[in-house]
Amino acid sequence: MQACLFTHLPDVRWLCGFSGSNAALALVATKSGMRAVLFTDGRYTAQAREEAAGTRVIIPKKKSALVAACQWLAESGAVKCGVDAAHTTLAELKWMKKAVASGRRRILFKPIASLVARQREIKDADEILKMREAALTGCLLFELIREHIRPGATEIEVAAELEHAARMAGAEAMSFETIVAGGVRSSLPHGRATMARLPRKGFVTLDFGVMLNGYCSDMTRTVHLGRATRAERDAYDSVLEAQQAAVAAVAPGVTCGKVDAAARSVLKKAGLAKWFTHSTGHGVGIEIHEGPRIAAKQKQKLQAGMVITIEPGIYIPGRFGIRIEDMVLVTKTGNEILTPSPKTWMEL
Amino acid sequence: MQACLFTHLPDVRWLCGFSGSNAALALVATKSGMRAVLFTDGRYTAQAREEAAGTRVIIPKKKSALVAACQWLAESGAVKCGVDAAHTTLAELKWMKKAVASGRRRILFKPIASLVARQREIKDADEILKMREAALTGCLLFELIREHIRPGATEIEVAAELEHAARMAGAEAMSFETIVAGGVRSSLPHGRATMARLPRKGFVTLDFGVMLNGYCSDMTRTVHLGRATRAERDAYDSVLEAQQAAVAAVAPGVTCGKVDAAARSVLKKAGLAKWFTHSTGHGVGIEIHEGPRIAAKQKQKLQAGMVITIEPGIYIPGRFGIRIEDMVLVTKTGNEILTPSPKTWMEL
Repeated sequence: MQACLFTHLPDVRWLCGFSGSNAALALVATKSGMRAVLFTDGRYTAQAREEAAGTRVIIPKKKSALVAACQWLAESGAVKCGVDAAHTTLAELKWMKKAVASGRRRILFKPIASLVARQREIKDADEILKMREAALTGCLLFELIREHIRPGATEIEVAAELEHAARMAGAEAMSFETIVAGGVRSSLPHGRATMARLPRKGFVTLDFGVMLNGYCSDMTRTVHLGRATRAERDAYDSVLEAQQAAVAAVAPGVTCGKVDAAARSVLKKAGLAKWFTHSTGHGVGIEIHEGPRIAAKQKQKLQAGMVITIEPGIYIPGRFGIRIEDMVLVTKTGNEILTPSPKTWMEL
Repeated sequence: MQACLFTHLPDVRWLCGFSGSNAALALVATKSGMRAVLFTDGRYTAQAREEAAGTRVIIPKKKSALVAACQWLAESGAVKCGVDAAHTTLAELKWMKKAVASGRRRILFKPIASLVARQREIKDADEILKMREAALTGCLLFELIREHIRPGATEIEVAAELEHAARMAGAEAMSFETIVAGGVRSSLPHGRATMARLPRKGFVTLDFGVMLNGYCSDMTRTVHLGRATRAERDAYDSVLEAQQAAVAAVAPGVTCGKVDAAARSVLKKAGLAKWFTHSTGHGVGIEIHEGPRIAAKQKQKLQAGMVITIEPGIYIPGRFGIRIEDMVLVTKTGNEILTPSPKTWMEL
């Protein structure tokens, strides 16, 4: 491809550092080398020049960043331009074609798979440092929040304390909507915090993450309020065993499907596999969900530098749910857990 | 259009009530009437049945919600299906075509402008009630946060207190990343809260909103720490006058461009128009940014039931910025401010 256009904001941030909410990064190969220009709008004049130092920045006055980027590509002599199929909408492609239709030079826009999604999966040393910091901040929050997890507290109160502590620890934002799900609500895999009160007896699932220096953390712990039944305790032990088996399987060269199977087979032996209704994990980085997918039959192989989640869970409708999740770095020789918070049985 | 497919989550929520993170809502007109099915995944089995009561829900086992929806449409006899051009990606359209390519029946997918975006602009009584609640919660937060706005506090501390109070007031989430920008940083229109400390003297801009019962609030106030200069005070008065002029212009039948012009002409007279670098406002509802756009030359006419923001601002690089924003309901006879927090000059 002789030219390409990046509009997916996490890709733009990864490529040039700019973190604003409107951007088109145009790249074109010319005889004298590669040229790149970042287009955004007047709200971000100062921020773009600061964050994307080293990249030329253009703030078009009378047209959108996207239109200006396409016209610049045409004027730069691009004939064929790759566009990100996964993030370009049908309406955007129409505007892009229209933007160059009246010019002297035409461009053929070719939908392609993201040129950087695969590259973003492998984190460099600087990124790993940032992810360690984000992950450890998550662990700190879990320590700080434990005293607030008590019968009668609303889920939203627990989320409020957790998010407040996250902000005080310097988080730019939560990396996704905080999940606090108590009692029967723990059986909802995506139970956002509600005004429901935590029960005297039962599980509480906390799934949360912060965004720190542009990178996301993601972790889940499930604790128990009051005395557990034998069935609850056994189920917890099985999920923990499944989680540890999947973590143990993580190493460069191993397929994602094999990591998923490691978790699933433990739950199968325990007769719980039918309640494990989602995949085992996903890559994490600038975005909370990135490649690779740690799911059944995925043939992609893990590589050193990937950061993935390992988060098996079971959800028994009307009864309870349990999920345990760590962020795991794929190292040259195996793996390292970035979220070393305790995950042994915890009765509060 | 004989059939259509909704995948933009706010549209799906508006149409059937479902608020999960993965959904495809298929509609087809048959001889016996309209049929609709909501497709999602196993994480949302319970939630979809509860929230979208009255709509048939299908949880496909071995395929994605999108693929299953397309195949269901084909089997239901749809020949032509409208898809939302503004929210369907090139990759999704490819999968959709592939999903029905092998079946006995084909579908022509036709990119169209959203069928519900315009309908969503007009809020019904139930929605207006929810938006009043969200807006008043925002006003409450502004009262609660004022004591925390003091020299030496970090912007992020102020954001932390505000977001904590929002959660305790029952907010499901903030409706966008909280902006707290002090001193020179107030001149960045989109200055996210950072670790920067508030100055002894200077403006502090707070732009924030909550999501309550699925609806967003959005408001901005700019206060001053310490004694202001004459220029700062004059600039504030001009922005306030511009904001009030734009609010006063809001009424059914008035074009959005005229409302924008009302704000802009006040700032022009004050010699400040060149620093007013964005549009005057936008619709708000399930999404923080919806139609209509309150911008220069917009010919769309306001209608009773619309809820819009009126938020002129000026940003003088290296010096200071000021923005004042209210949510305004278009009534049958004129308008009503939904965020009645004080906006007269405030020196803290």
